[in-house]
Amino acid sequence: MPQRLVVIGGDAAGMSAASQARRRAKPSELEIVAFERGQYTSYSACGLPYFVGGLVKDAQDLIARSPDEHRANGIDVRTGHEVVDVDVDARQLMVRRHRDHSTIVEGFDQLVFATGAVPVKPDLPGSDAKGIYGIQTITDGIALREHVVHSGVRRAVVVGGGYVGLEMAEAMTRAGLDVVLLDRSPQPMNTIDPDMGAVVADVLRGLGIELHMEVAVHGFEQDADGNVAAVATEGHAFPADIVVLGLGVKPGSRLAHDAGVAVGTTGGIVTDRRMATKTEGVWAAGDCVETFHRVSRRPVAMALGTHANKQGKVVGDNVTGGYSAFPGVIGTAVTKVCELEVARTGLSEREAHAAGFEFVVGRIESTTRAAYYPDSSTLHVKVLADARNGTMLGAQIVGREGAAKRIDVLATAIWTGMTADEFSMLDLAYAPPYSPVWDPTLVAARKAVAEINSR
Amino acid sequence: MPQRLVVIGGDAAGMSAASQARRRAKPSELEIVAFERGQYTSYSACGLPYFVGGLVKDAQDLIARSPDEHRANGIDVRTGHEVVDVDVDARQLMVRRHRDHSTIVEGFDQLVFATGAVPVKPDLPGSDAKGIYGIQTITDGIALREHVVHSGVRRAVVVGGGYVGLEMAEAMTRAGLDVVLLDRSPQPMNTIDPDMGAVVADVLRGLGIELHMEVAVHGFEQDADGNVAAVATEGHAFPADIVVLGLGVKPGSRLAHDAGVAVGTTGGIVTDRRMATKTEGVWAAGDCVETFHRVSRRPVAMALGTHANKQGKVVGDNVTGGYSAFPGVIGTAVTKVCELEVARTGLSEREAHAAGFEFVVGRIESTTRAAYYPDSSTLHVKVLADARNGTMLGAQIVGREGAAKRIDVLATAIWTGMTADEFSMLDLAYAPPYSPVWDPTLVAARKAVAEINSR
Repeated sequence: MPQRLVVIGGDAAGMSAASQARRRAKPSELEIVAFERGQYTSYSACGLPYFVGGLVKDAQDLIARSPDEHRANGIDVRTGHEVVDVDVDARQLMVRRHRDHSTIVEGFDQLVFATGAVPVKPDLPGSDAKGIYGIQTITDGIALREHVVHSGVRRAVVVGGGYVGLEMAEAMTRAGLDVVLLDRSPQPMNTIDPDMGAVVADVLRGLGIELHMEVAVHGFEQDADGNVAAVATEGHAFPADIVVLGLGVKPGSRLAHDAGVAVGTTGGIVTDRRMATKTEGVWAAGDCVETFHRVSRRPVAMALGTHANKQGKVVGDNVTGGYSAFPGVIGTAVTKVCELEVARTGLSEREAHAAGFEFVVGRIESTTRAAYYPDSSTLHVKVLADARNGTMLGAQIVGREGAAKRIDVLATAIWTGMTADEFSMLDLAYAPPYSPVWDPTLVAARKAVAEINSR
Repeated sequence: MPQRLVVIGGDAAGMSAASQARRRAKPSELEIVAFERGQYTSYSACGLPYFVGGLVKDAQDLIARSPDEHRANGIDVRTGHEVVDVDVDARQLMVRRHRDHSTIVEGFDQLVFATGAVPVKPDLPGSDAKGIYGIQTITDGIALREHVVHSGVRRAVVVGGGYVGLEMAEAMTRAGLDVVLLDRSPQPMNTIDPDMGAVVADVLRGLGIELHMEVAVHGFEQDADGNVAAVATEGHAFPADIVVLGLGVKPGSRLAHDAGVAVGTTGGIVTDRRMATKTEGVWAAGDCVETFHRVSRRPVAMALGTHANKQGKVVGDNVTGGYSAFPGVIGTAVTKVCELEVARTGLSEREAHAAGFEFVVGRIESTTRAAYYPDSSTLHVKVLADARNGTMLGAQIVGREGAAKRIDVLATAIWTGMTADEFSMLDLAYAPPYSPVWDPTLVAARKAVAEINSR
């Protein structure tokens, strides 16, 4: 009899775990079953805004591997199957089968929670109106795209100015709608500092997106047919044919919690570096877990496809007797809104304060190419460094084409604990089409060094 | 009486040294004189191909700071002044003044050699023909541009398939000429491995550049007016209206050597980490020096604007009583030929062998963006890692728009001595417009890890 590995969730984390386990263990040794509530597996949620905006024509393109492909690969994927209860002592699951509304019981030897994230949804009057969308699953994306294309909608209100909010604002703009973006914060992108957020805000306005900051949504107005008509705030109503909520997500850990699997203060499932939970034979990966932030040295819940994929692979190795470890994160993220590029890594000023750091800031404006080379554009780079020892703590970049992916150089340096002084002398690639002779990242680090020296 | 600092050479290295010294020391404490043979200072030699090709309209745009600007800044720049002899014991220079062909004697307290590089020129029959150009100075560039635009030339032959050769091939193509590229090596770009060079060769041919590899030039044919007519090789003559030599450069260290300043086996002036030569009060910076390669742990001569600028700044700090160090190089370089992007860092296979490493190779083909995102293009990434401990030794990237600058991430990792295994789990920025969910650099590192594990 083979052992039985059950994966709860068909997203990138779950299917990475299943696929990696399948690569390493024969079907005669290990049976692998994955239960997925929806109809799709291994799709890119990060790609949804591009489908909604029409840049990606076919939602199928977002799917790295379909349920049938996984099945052909020896993974027993069961879509439309929602796990509703887990008994870790009895090694049993209760599974609701959407097809016939029946509930079945399934056993397991080892279990992987890959239950993803759940969107934060405001409990506000009128939030059940038609035309209000979250963007979490491919099904959400298809429904929203359908609405945008076929219903003659003209005015979109996006609530929330984080990554998803901005990407959806671009998607709506691209689809030809008038877009209003509302956010509670003084600047969009509160994962970057307000001074950098102000640069983002300027560019967004230049793109024709109407920004209203420091605005709290009180509710949604509906028309007689139950369609959303406006977003109500303190003393104002923003007319809307369609509303997109981008209020962030939290770890989808309820099922694990109810099963007695340890959940941390962040709301994410607690695991060790091998992605093992505190419960024997139970693993977790992806947006439902909390992980270790290498700079703040604190647990964080960070929903992102890269971590989900890596963690899934780590589970797949370990569940089949290998040894792999997920080394933690440093909060690297990037987004693109039309030509605007925004990236960050490590700690923001707020996060650095919260983690107890005293720090200096090096902030500069430079260009993406040598100044004389055509199509050079301005970029803003900000580096935070420990005021005492110069260790780089965080960095942010805002600019246009060719700006943001430079964050990876800073991320690599921050990952290794490099000081701003050492960083400023790095041997980075130079040719006029790619960079000024001093790469902007180096100049920002030099500025931070000068700040330390002038204290 | 102020001390007197003399800089030999008005290039980026020399003027960075002078400018940094000027920032740190008052004119009443330190007089700064710079002798430059030509008429220009602080110009970007790296930008010359773009001027020749017409992408940069005005040669003045390549000049970061003119002699007058330096003078206004308190640096006594003397253009048209060629230092012909240095007496370090007497603290005196012999300087030939081009204006009136006189020779003057100048004293110094501290001296900086910033004598740059000299192009390798073949001693071949007919090499004095008109229409044969090297590309070393802005004067060369202006003459070549003039010739290309005004003489109705049609056929260009570029000799040498390194960075400058390829960039000049692009420039000639852009200027509307038919371009033939000749090189002794089996593949262009012998700073990358032949397998990656083969990818470069394919793309170059696709751009309409006629490549002839493993070809040695025997001489140049002239017409009756002394103009170049053809480039002669073994059994063939390539018709040419214009010839560009891109045969590389060597350190311009003769003056220093003749003055008794130590020159190393690479031909570059030997310095310590503060850029001090072995002669008291004598410094050197830029293409005329040899520096330390952090991976091979050997001295190397590497002519590149980034190093020149950094070394100049280091000299400027130290010559005024500060403490700065140049930490060495890892051989990072990048070039762009039309849409083709080529980058490298660390050691190539040949260099790794020569340095005594046993290594594995991880080579992959991936895409610059998520596969479903528009305008995604193929890139090739190759990573070399120490076969025993996994330390990353070198990396190469060949691709199109958005490919090459990723080398900086690998460069940062190699700089710090990161292993391929650690690298493969780095927290790099991900969003569909920038990268697949596993960044290509991470995948190449994973491949190297798999190679080590399979040994």
